[in-house]
Amino acid sequence: MDNWITKQAALLPDRVAVDDGTERLTFSGLAERLKKLVGQLNRSGALAGRRVAIMTSNSLLGYQMALAILASGRTIVWVNWRLSDDEINQQLSDSRPSVCLVADSLWRDSFGGKFIKFSQVCQQAAQPEELTSQFQQETVASIMYTSGTTGAPKGVMQTFGNHFSSAVASSLNLGILPRDEWLCAVPIFHISGFSIMMRGLIYGMTVRLVSRFDPQVIDTILRKEPVTTMSVVPYMLKKLLDLRDQHAGGYNKRFRCMLLGGGPIDRQTLTRCQKYGIPVVQSYGMTETCSQIVALNNEDADKKVGSVGKPLFLTQLKLAADNHEILIKTPALTPGYLNRPGALAKKKTATGWYHTGDVGHLDAAGFLYVDGRIDDMIISGGENIFPDEIEAVYATYPGIEDIAVIGVSDPEWGQSPVAFIVSSKPLSASALSDYGRQRLAHYKVPRRFYRLDRLPMNAGGKIQRFKLKERLNEGR
Amino acid sequence: MDNWITKQAALLPDRVAVDDGTERLTFSGLAERLKKLVGQLNRSGALAGRRVAIMTSNSLLGYQMALAILASGRTIVWVNWRLSDDEINQQLSDSRPSVCLVADSLWRDSFGGKFIKFSQVCQQAAQPEELTSQFQQETVASIMYTSGTTGAPKGVMQTFGNHFSSAVASSLNLGILPRDEWLCAVPIFHISGFSIMMRGLIYGMTVRLVSRFDPQVIDTILRKEPVTTMSVVPYMLKKLLDLRDQHAGGYNKRFRCMLLGGGPIDRQTLTRCQKYGIPVVQSYGMTETCSQIVALNNEDADKKVGSVGKPLFLTQLKLAADNHEILIKTPALTPGYLNRPGALAKKKTATGWYHTGDVGHLDAAGFLYVDGRIDDMIISGGENIFPDEIEAVYATYPGIEDIAVIGVSDPEWGQSPVAFIVSSKPLSASALSDYGRQRLAHYKVPRRFYRLDRLPMNAGGKIQRFKLKERLNEGR
Repeated sequence: MDNWITKQAALLPDRVAVDDGTERLTFSGLAERLKKLVGQLNRSGALAGRRVAIMTSNSLLGYQMALAILASGRTIVWVNWRLSDDEINQQLSDSRPSVCLVADSLWRDSFGGKFIKFSQVCQQAAQPEELTSQFQQETVASIMYTSGTTGAPKGVMQTFGNHFSSAVASSLNLGILPRDEWLCAVPIFHISGFSIMMRGLIYGMTVRLVSRFDPQVIDTILRKEPVTTMSVVPYMLKKLLDLRDQHAGGYNKRFRCMLLGGGPIDRQTLTRCQKYGIPVVQSYGMTETCSQIVALNNEDADKKVGSVGKPLFLTQLKLAADNHEILIKTPALTPGYLNRPGALAKKKTATGWYHTGDVGHLDAAGFLYVDGRIDDMIISGGENIFPDEIEAVYATYPGIEDIAVIGVSDPEWGQSPVAFIVSSKPLSASALSDYGRQRLAHYKVPRRFYRLDRLPMNAGGKIQRFKLKERLNEGR
Repeated sequence: MDNWITKQAALLPDRVAVDDGTERLTFSGLAERLKKLVGQLNRSGALAGRRVAIMTSNSLLGYQMALAILASGRTIVWVNWRLSDDEINQQLSDSRPSVCLVADSLWRDSFGGKFIKFSQVCQQAAQPEELTSQFQQETVASIMYTSGTTGAPKGVMQTFGNHFSSAVASSLNLGILPRDEWLCAVPIFHISGFSIMMRGLIYGMTVRLVSRFDPQVIDTILRKEPVTTMSVVPYMLKKLLDLRDQHAGGYNKRFRCMLLGGGPIDRQTLTRCQKYGIPVVQSYGMTETCSQIVALNNEDADKKVGSVGKPLFLTQLKLAADNHEILIKTPALTPGYLNRPGALAKKKTATGWYHTGDVGHLDAAGFLYVDGRIDDMIISGGENIFPDEIEAVYATYPGIEDIAVIGVSDPEWGQSPVAFIVSSKPLSASALSDYGRQRLAHYKVPRRFYRLDRLPMNAGGKIQRFKLKERLNEGR
């Protein structure tokens, strides 16, 4: 394929490619900027190798830096700025980029010679350089380290073909409407955000870039600007609904889709969305599949609460006969993990089905429900229990701020669930048990409740259940 | 990929897949019909081999028969019903299908044992059969014989991947809007029509099937039914505009695109389209590329009359340095011609650029203009002359019903143009010359005008210039 940026600069030179609220860059303007940046990156020594790492928030300059890496024919290594120094160094020593570009605002004094501030790049006096002419299907465009709730992070390689397939599958579900504009408030170093950038280039669509999730700012944008689509996680959606409760007047008339990832919507939240006429498309995907591979349309949302929908046009899906693990095939699937040649093959069957690590079930009409991570599944007396269900029930218990459930060995039942809770004051264990018995099958009620100051989380905000298990084992 | 028909039956069971004005088949209904038809085809012996030929007009039954061939895992061999017996037998002996299915209305007494009427298939008492689960990218879905204006027809193999890429490239240009409905009045045995069927399956879109091009009927449909898009050739567009001149009231409000192939639009026709608010997208493509690979948007139509537009997102395009032949790369390009293993490679450069056989030029903004077929090009005194340009000038000459221009050897200029005209009465050669001199460069004016009863045409309606050359040579 032709370089997507130069292609859109040729096809739609005057269309706005990205708009951060202060500046609007057309596709031709973007291409010119990138030529200059590629010259400066080259002069900075950033293009000496095949890969360039980048650590940035959702700034317009970070956006351009990332695309300049692609447009120079190099691979982006995305670095989550929430990581510790050790974690960053671990990822960089695995991916070995020429340099790690760092947004000035995220600079740390601990950073050594391999790190370059954006401002250092922009100060270079350099001639503009021609952009690479080709984005080859098989070329690795980006590497993202998976959040690693259970082990060392692995670098997921995402090819141009993966990103293209993902964007096409999404378009066959959501459509491509004239002057679509996608709001990106999710991090561009996650697949949720980077996939919006890629769709922008492939559809010739405007991306409305937002530096961080400020509900009040986003609400104003959705009301006053011609944004048509936004990607959200449940937390963001709920915060936006809180503001809808307070303000009169709906979003702009062209708004047509909240694309929801990171967990299914509950009935109460759905009802609030319906009340305000906000269309929600629930989706399911992962870093390894370049974002969504399954989605629930707005029309089905009401009668299929809790479902993540049906496999998209390019997704083939089935459940493993034994443990109901979700298995998929999709052209958006990563070719593998960096420096771990056998690691992906281990997660695939002989006939090429990829093990997602999630357990699910399908209803009679083919709608998928994700029950939980197979590694988190607790088997008690032959019954499968997923922590998510128990946690969701206790999430509304007065005084509980946070909760995580894991399984522990049980001489009688094989395993049984126990809970770790965060609360500002001690809570009665018997009251907690009673509460669970009224709402859950008996075998799902946690046998013990441990109180913690905070739950162990990774940089992506996911609970590290393996640390809770270690803690229990140490306590023995 | 999953079988596109069963996939849409799962994703959008209640959406109308095809509507011929008397019956509307949903995707789930279509899948059920095809199961039955596959059983009947099997029982008829039609599925004994890898290929099944079909000769049909745009009937709903023909539509289903063709899809049943695909859904049974076989390859469709499309037969143009305008061909002579000899031409049909030539194509069938090349493609060797199990049988040739024939619409009852197109049956000929000359047809032998290899031909089966649709009604014979439908009379079979057979159990429904499961449809093939997969449409593999590399599998040949269809074979279409090229019209062959210069030689023996060649069977163009079109894979599912070719059709998919073509549909995706089109969607990235035209968008995919909710409840799009595409009117198919062009023959389904041509790529113009079959590509609509394929888009229907890929987008989950309704195809409004019309049995033949009756301008009055089509005009009524475009006014009264929610059709959004229609594929036309210039002749059809002009006939539809004639009716617009006569009738008040525009097309239905959702109508958004006349996709025009088979030749560029002239200023007068464009002005008429603008007058009636009919958006036109000029396009350029061929059987070998599964339809359009270049297109001109409606917004650019006015300032770029005569251009076929810019290469679509998945099309790479350049002009040969020497003769300005249009060279392309696209994932929609055929893998080759049936039984002619080296034939496609001969039309490709060492680096994979496909020679279209058309000569063109690009303007400064990157818009493509197709000048004509390289085989028809006349080189006179070092200047390139294309018959199309001369023919277009004389098309409006009073008394000329049809005209074709070819080049003949000229001792002084190398070649010079001569014209063959169809007219009900003899026309003055000197008046014809004068007319040309006022409108064309001197070297483009035909040196001689030969009068014929009719021009030699192939079944696709294209002029066979090689026959005119033979005629002149025989006359010597």
